[in-house]
Amino acid sequence: MNILTATHFSTAQISQLESLPDVHVIRQNDFQPKLAPIIDVIMAWSPLAAKILAGPNRVKFIQTSSAGIDYLPLAALDQQKVLVAHAGGIHGDAIAQSVLGYILYFARYITHPQNRNPQNFWQGRIQRRVLYSVVNKRVLIYGTGHVGQAISQRLRQIGLQTIGVNHSGHPAPEFTETIALATSKVQPPVADFIVNALPLTNATQHFFAADFFAHQPQPPIFINVGRGPSVDTTALIAALKNGQLAGAALDVFEQEPLPADSPLWQAPNLLMTPHTTGTVDHVEDALFAIFYPNLQSFCQTGKLSVNQVDLKLGY
Amino acid sequence: MNILTATHFSTAQISQLESLPDVHVIRQNDFQPKLAPIIDVIMAWSPLAAKILAGPNRVKFIQTSSAGIDYLPLAALDQQKVLVAHAGGIHGDAIAQSVLGYILYFARYITHPQNRNPQNFWQGRIQRRVLYSVVNKRVLIYGTGHVGQAISQRLRQIGLQTIGVNHSGHPAPEFTETIALATSKVQPPVADFIVNALPLTNATQHFFAADFFAHQPQPPIFINVGRGPSVDTTALIAALKNGQLAGAALDVFEQEPLPADSPLWQAPNLLMTPHTTGTVDHVEDALFAIFYPNLQSFCQTGKLSVNQVDLKLGY
Repeated sequence: MNILTATHFSTAQISQLESLPDVHVIRQNDFQPKLAPIIDVIMAWSPLAAKILAGPNRVKFIQTSSAGIDYLPLAALDQQKVLVAHAGGIHGDAIAQSVLGYILYFARYITHPQNRNPQNFWQGRIQRRVLYSVVNKRVLIYGTGHVGQAISQRLRQIGLQTIGVNHSGHPAPEFTETIALATSKVQPPVADFIVNALPLTNATQHFFAADFFAHQPQPPIFINVGRGPSVDTTALIAALKNGQLAGAALDVFEQEPLPADSPLWQAPNLLMTPHTTGTVDHVEDALFAIFYPNLQSFCQTGKLSVNQVDLKLGY
Repeated sequence: MNILTATHFSTAQISQLESLPDVHVIRQNDFQPKLAPIIDVIMAWSPLAAKILAGPNRVKFIQTSSAGIDYLPLAALDQQKVLVAHAGGIHGDAIAQSVLGYILYFARYITHPQNRNPQNFWQGRIQRRVLYSVVNKRVLIYGTGHVGQAISQRLRQIGLQTIGVNHSGHPAPEFTETIALATSKVQPPVADFIVNALPLTNATQHFFAADFFAHQPQPPIFINVGRGPSVDTTALIAALKNGQLAGAALDVFEQEPLPADSPLWQAPNLLMTPHTTGTVDHVEDALFAIFYPNLQSFCQTGKLSVNQVDLKLGY
């Protein structure tokens, strides 16, 4: 069984994988086109993986290094009966720490544009009242899976109140209150911050659009650490300009890489990071802890043990 | 007894103060020069307060609105037997939230300069490894009073490890480990972040200078939320440039307001806020909760009940 990996596993990790019967690991740097038809397992999606899948191949298992898998050719993989596992769970706390950082950035007046201007720097003090405590601020978190739970846990640790939003409003760990997606749109709760951590599906495509922003009972700060296309960017910019949003932090974008001429660069009260929020310390170790048991199980039974994606549902 | 207040107490609060026997409150806006000799109590230091103290006066009690009182004419007040109370305790959590914000700003790559440049924005992703989890990062906190304790409490809530530094290394609430100021200079512990929350005294003037930065076992990120003159600014800039410091966040400065031509504006990896970190929501209520019992006690017994400053020690 031939494993193609784009993840930089250590020599020891490669040896452990190859201690499984018949397993042979090919690092992406060592790949040659003639190997394409004999790859059985792909670790981490890449343009090369897409190329292999598009040609004659015998790929039967793909392990991604991301929690979201919307960028995969899901229908084709389903038809080809490829098993897919996501890497959900490993990015949760990293994303949660970044969300807390974004919230404190706004609440504590950190690197306000005025703070970067020598001429106006001290005058910023007259705006001291823009600083506020985050204790008891209300945060609406869209998505109550691994990532949403990790965010809720972190925010509650320092005294914020969270409400989870999921498809049916079912209870979820780390949330004392949850509401249904549809309810949140017709009867939006008062929120100081709204965080999107939803997977990208047909139901969440452009969910955060003009009507959503227009119906907020007070202008919240909107944070997107889910997927870019869940947000209508044009509507977001308009909401920032007309005050329906008090601010926004985006780590993901409708178009990635974000073009240098995107109108987002001119939007007010907007903080942007280049899809880095989920960056995990020692990510290879975290991925190995998911991939190894999955590969072991796949070799023995042809099935996966954790994080299998339902290709029809898309998550 | 005539109280001059620069704090914007509400009408209800003024009434409550004036319900004390013989108390009459004069708002700073209503002050007239002829009242200077008959002011007994000053609530919040101001240029006007300095002027009153410099002339013939009968002031006997000053309540500040700040935790630090180094800006007061301490020797003159001591000689004139004026009682002074600080506002320590009310700013602690506000400062702690900002310190957490500064730490996450550096750890989570938030508004890295590259993130503000449309041309290089996405290339910042190659530096994803500069992001790290703050869990188990070590923070050396100078000052284990109200503010240091509040900072330690917040940081430990999200999994950072803290070490307190005070004059003798005595134990302090919210710290599991404390060391003496002198020890910290000759045997500096390994720290990812160093936070200054010390009062400004002769012992802390330029404590953070070239020798301090040069002897760190690894380059920490330095955060000053104490007083500007505790830091030798020239040495700090040099340490940022030569890599002895990995970064710095300053809320206070040797010279305030910070001049537009300060060399700090050209220093690398430096985040600055205009002495705003201690901003408290509803600060008048927080100050009233200290001033009212102190005034009550002063009226009844001539003594203060909380936060009295030792004018000889300077804190």
